[in-house]
Amino acid sequence: MKALVLFSGGLDSTTCLALAIEKYGAQNVIALSITYGQKHDKEALSAKAVAEHYGIELLTLDLARIFEGSDCSLLKGSDKDIPKGDYAQQLESTDGKPVSTYVPFRNGLFLSCAASMALSRDCEVIYYGAHSDDAAGNAYPDCSSEFNDHMNEAIYIGSGKQLRIEAPFVNLTKADVVAQGLRLNAPYELTWSCYEGGEKPCGCCGTCIDRAKAFAANGISDPALN
Amino acid sequence: MKALVLFSGGLDSTTCLALAIEKYGAQNVIALSITYGQKHDKEALSAKAVAEHYGIELLTLDLARIFEGSDCSLLKGSDKDIPKGDYAQQLESTDGKPVSTYVPFRNGLFLSCAASMALSRDCEVIYYGAHSDDAAGNAYPDCSSEFNDHMNEAIYIGSGKQLRIEAPFVNLTKADVVAQGLRLNAPYELTWSCYEGGEKPCGCCGTCIDRAKAFAANGISDPALN
Repeated sequence: MKALVLFSGGLDSTTCLALAIEKYGAQNVIALSITYGQKHDKEALSAKAVAEHYGIELLTLDLARIFEGSDCSLLKGSDKDIPKGDYAQQLESTDGKPVSTYVPFRNGLFLSCAASMALSRDCEVIYYGAHSDDAAGNAYPDCSSEFNDHMNEAIYIGSGKQLRIEAPFVNLTKADVVAQGLRLNAPYELTWSCYEGGEKPCGCCGTCIDRAKAFAANGISDPALN
Repeated sequence: MKALVLFSGGLDSTTCLALAIEKYGAQNVIALSITYGQKHDKEALSAKAVAEHYGIELLTLDLARIFEGSDCSLLKGSDKDIPKGDYAQQLESTDGKPVSTYVPFRNGLFLSCAASMALSRDCEVIYYGAHSDDAAGNAYPDCSSEFNDHMNEAIYIGSGKQLRIEAPFVNLTKADVVAQGLRLNAPYELTWSCYEGGEKPCGCCGTCIDRAKAFAANGISDPALN
C-alpha cells in the first residue's frame, strides 16, 4: 500500500511523515509540499530538506492564485500583521470566528489536491498532521476531528472507495505529537514553523509559542534552535 | 447574501447559474470556471459567453498541474480514447469502479477551490450542478448525494460555519435539470458539453447522449445544435 503525506516542512507534518514511513516504508511514501502565498514560504525549504533526509519523492504545488482575494494575515498579500500571543489569547477578540491566520478552507483544499494527486499515483491513503490544539476553540476549524470525519467520508465516497484519510493526531495535543516524533527520531532540527518567515523564529507568534510549549512538555529544548 | 457558482459552461452548471441568479440577483452572483487539462477545454469559452450573457463576474482558474499524473481519458495527457456509448454501457466493463472519464476527485477539488475563493469574497453559499444521472451506478461517485452531504458538512464546519453548498439538482435527473432551465430561459444555445471538444459535438460520448436524451424528454431539440 502506498501513502501520500500532506507535508509542510513543519513539526506536525514531519512527525506525520515519520509515522507513515515507519508504517509503509520510505519506498511507499510520497510527500506533497504546497506553497500558497504564505509569508513563511521558507517552510518549503524545510520540506525539501526533510524529504531528502528520508530519501522520499517530494511533489510540489503552488496555489497562491486561489488565495489572491483573501486578507488572511498569514498571506503576503495581506496588510494585516500576524498576531502575537497564543491562540487562546487571540480567540478572545475573534467573536467566535477563526483566528486571523486561518487561511480560507486551506486544509480542505490541500486534502482535495492530495486526493486528486494520490489517486493518480495509486496511493490508498492520505496522511496529514492536524491535531487538537489547533482545533481548540475553533481557532482552525479545518483541523477539527468533526471536519476530518466528513472530509474523509467525502474523499472515500467521492473516489469510489479507492482512497481514505489517516489523521493520526486529530485527537492528540502538539505535545503528544512531539512525543511520537522523538520516539521516531524525526529530524526536527530541519523543520520550520514560525509564521513570520524571518531569518530566525520570532518566538511570539501562535505557532512559535505552541511549538516551544510542546518541546517543554517533553522536557527538551527545540532542536531547531540549537 | 452572495453566491459563488461552480461553472463549466455546460448544460447543468448553466442551469444552476440561472437558478442562483433568479434567487440572489445577478449582482450577487460570481461564477468560477476551471480548466484542468480537459480535452474539451473549449467549454471555458462557453462559460465566458454565458457569463457575459448574464453580465456577471467570472473568475477563472487553471488546475492542469494537479492532474498531470492521471491517465483519465478526459484529459489531454492521456493515451486513452473517450468511450462511446452511455454510462450504463460503460459501467458494464469497469468492475464497480468509476467510468474512464472520471477525473480523480475533481468535484471535491473544485468545491474546495470554490470554498477558498468564496470565503475571500464574502459569499455564503456555493452552487453546483451535480445531478443523479451522473451519480448512477457509481459512474461519477463525486456527483452523489452522499458525497455532497459530507462535502457540505466539511465546508460548513471547516469554514467556521461561514459557508455551505447548495446542490439543487443532486436528487434530480438531467431531464429535470433541462425542465428547470427552460422555465428560466437559460441560454442553452451558448453551452458546450461534448467531451471530445471538436468543432461540433460528437453525438456519441456519454455526455452527448445524456444531453440529447434530456432535451428529447422535454420534447425539444438541443438549441446548441440549431
